[in-house]
Amino acid sequence: MTVAETAKQARAASRSMASLTIASRDQALIAMADALLNARDRLFDANNRDLANAHGLPEPVRKRLIYNEKKLRESVDELRALAAAPDPLGRTTLARMLADGLKLYRVSCPIGVVGVIFESRPDALVQIAALCLKSGNAALLKGGSEASYTNRALFEALNAAAISCGIPEGWASLFGSREDVAEMLALDDLIDLIIPRGGNAFVRYIKENSRIPVLGHADGVCHVYVDVSERGENDRRAPYADCALRVVRDSKTQYAAVCNAVETLLVHKDAAEAFLPELAKNMPEVELRGCPAAQRIINCKSASDADWDAEYLDYILSVRVVDSLDEAIEHINRHGSGHTDAIVTDSPLRAARFLAEADSANVFHNCSTRFADGYRYGFGAELGIATGKIHARGPVGLEGLTIYKYKLLGAGHTVADTQDGTVAYLHKPLDEECPL
Amino acid sequence: MTVAETAKQARAASRSMASLTIASRDQALIAMADALLNARDRLFDANNRDLANAHGLPEPVRKRLIYNEKKLRESVDELRALAAAPDPLGRTTLARMLADGLKLYRVSCPIGVVGVIFESRPDALVQIAALCLKSGNAALLKGGSEASYTNRALFEALNAAAISCGIPEGWASLFGSREDVAEMLALDDLIDLIIPRGGNAFVRYIKENSRIPVLGHADGVCHVYVDVSERGENDRRAPYADCALRVVRDSKTQYAAVCNAVETLLVHKDAAEAFLPELAKNMPEVELRGCPAAQRIINCKSASDADWDAEYLDYILSVRVVDSLDEAIEHINRHGSGHTDAIVTDSPLRAARFLAEADSANVFHNCSTRFADGYRYGFGAELGIATGKIHARGPVGLEGLTIYKYKLLGAGHTVADTQDGTVAYLHKPLDEECPL
Repeated sequence: MTVAETAKQARAASRSMASLTIASRDQALIAMADALLNARDRLFDANNRDLANAHGLPEPVRKRLIYNEKKLRESVDELRALAAAPDPLGRTTLARMLADGLKLYRVSCPIGVVGVIFESRPDALVQIAALCLKSGNAALLKGGSEASYTNRALFEALNAAAISCGIPEGWASLFGSREDVAEMLALDDLIDLIIPRGGNAFVRYIKENSRIPVLGHADGVCHVYVDVSERGENDRRAPYADCALRVVRDSKTQYAAVCNAVETLLVHKDAAEAFLPELAKNMPEVELRGCPAAQRIINCKSASDADWDAEYLDYILSVRVVDSLDEAIEHINRHGSGHTDAIVTDSPLRAARFLAEADSANVFHNCSTRFADGYRYGFGAELGIATGKIHARGPVGLEGLTIYKYKLLGAGHTVADTQDGTVAYLHKPLDEECPL
Repeated sequence: MTVAETAKQARAASRSMASLTIASRDQALIAMADALLNARDRLFDANNRDLANAHGLPEPVRKRLIYNEKKLRESVDELRALAAAPDPLGRTTLARMLADGLKLYRVSCPIGVVGVIFESRPDALVQIAALCLKSGNAALLKGGSEASYTNRALFEALNAAAISCGIPEGWASLFGSREDVAEMLALDDLIDLIIPRGGNAFVRYIKENSRIPVLGHADGVCHVYVDVSERGENDRRAPYADCALRVVRDSKTQYAAVCNAVETLLVHKDAAEAFLPELAKNMPEVELRGCPAAQRIINCKSASDADWDAEYLDYILSVRVVDSLDEAIEHINRHGSGHTDAIVTDSPLRAARFLAEADSANVFHNCSTRFADGYRYGFGAELGIATGKIHARGPVGLEGLTIYKYKLLGAGHTVADTQDGTVAYLHKPLDEECPL
């Protein structure tokens, strides 16, 4: 089948998926968990083939490629947890009596056909397929080529199990090549949403080459802003100074190679003299790159213009001294990526301004940027973190894969009757679920 | 100022608009209402100039151009009603204790900078500017050129009133030319959302020429599907047959020139013989264009392939006889525009399937497609009806102009502490609003 034919099949499948009961979707998820356990040997064989081809890959990439007993167990647990999770579909989020006998409901429903392009991490395939199925969406999947044998083996096990439970053929498909992705991007009449995961450059490529809406993030240029103490004094023993050290240190060093790690530290000029030397002392393993004002306080490399936009994903931190809260927010809104930005301050008023005006999906007060994560938020499995300004923002899970429709139930109601006075609008709230 | 400079100013204004209190936004709306009343003479003069230039325009277009005492009164009422409406911002839609002292909130917030391109209807300018201000968004406005004098006069009155209440300069701007729109479409780093209203071809042009997300609809190809009676009999006296006549008649003739009027009637083959002759008798003013099966039952023109995709906006109705509910849904999902589609049936089960599987923003059971409208839904002012599958769908008002951000409030919390066991995740729901 061509990519377009596959997408057409997905479109057709998505129609009947919209009326699958939650019982049948959950039963399929449980069957998928069992199928993975039954396919254990085949999965590990396939993964060994991928790993055998993985010579020369950087160690972190190779590590993500591994699908072993532990990963299998995690996949099975995830599938079962998802089967036990509440139904994201059919939720009535508005119910209103428009007129006598005419009732309006806003009801959550699947988006339709979702294309997900993900990195070479086989466990991601299981997670993504499961989230799509639970939310009633047909899935077009393309995983990283380094994991192709494992992905194919996982996909075959999951797909057969779902179909045996009555999920329609075409509910999920696995593409093999980069060319398939390019073809997919042109199918804006068949695909409703693209979720690209992984590399920065790749996400940009997707955004620039498709009319299909894209959910995801390209960069994670996150900031911590250390504000001046509310008392206005330059007090290095202020409790918030300890807090600032803890937050900056964790945001940078707890795991530097991820999108929610901090890349730029902003410090209020009245806090800089006390704070920066402490920081330098406490993070000797991190290379600091400072603005001229920072360099007057601590001994560090000089930051170039490019540093303010850099996603290092490494033990490097650019440091800029700012004159005011406003300047900090301006810096973040200009150079940040709308992912995660934190303020450390003992002033609730200043924190509130920062949280309102820093235009990011996740805005934090006195805690590490590393908390920006679906699991840490308690959302269960996530598809990724979205930095756009519409639909879904921040960690995206099941809810981001749904939309809603308006269902209006009448008994021959006409607008003409409302205009000649036969029928009057009531617009009365109803406390009930949509019955259909 | 260039378009890009204006958009930059809007971006800057949007930042401080995100922390305007609801009191100051509502006060501005009230001042805007007063300003329109004070500018009455200037507004009517400007409108007379537009009307004087409107020779040769079709009468409905000329009529929409009128801004008179009645329209002014409606604008003033709308502004005051919006000032009294609840705040769409700062609503906490999720609150959760992640760990002791670490609290997560999901809080509604403005999208940022919204570009709205609207038809030559001066009252639309007031409505759109007011909705954007209430929802804390900066607005880049471009109205139809036929209304340019009236738009300019309205804009100046509204803008001065808002600024006098402390709304930041640049919160709204009015562009004058089509070239400005073309420039706007390229500013995807400064504009978060485009809402095009009006002509079909124009909406397509916008969608195809910008990377900025677009909210709106291009077509309104709406359907009514008259199902067979559950009793399986061809009973022309069945109550649902009366219902079908009422619904089809109202959907087509109550106001034919609008996007929520029906364009294609689908009839189940077992209902067609009784229903179609009744329909033809009851809608003599409507030109019917039938498929071959319909033509065997009633005397009507033949429908061409193009008819199934046509938005007539006129007293024309294409009629197709289908073999099954499935065929009806398939027809709608292939030829419809995802706007509004209705089923007439006495079977709740069949209605439920239709409502789930017809992939449209508004899906109706036993009532006229003409109800698909923000005012009739009781939503107050609306920006338009969206037929996309993400963000907002159906009639879009204030809520569609908001998104949310995650606010996480801690006291020096680090991920390292959660990993070494010092701090445990609780993920406990909280019943409180975000305090910051």
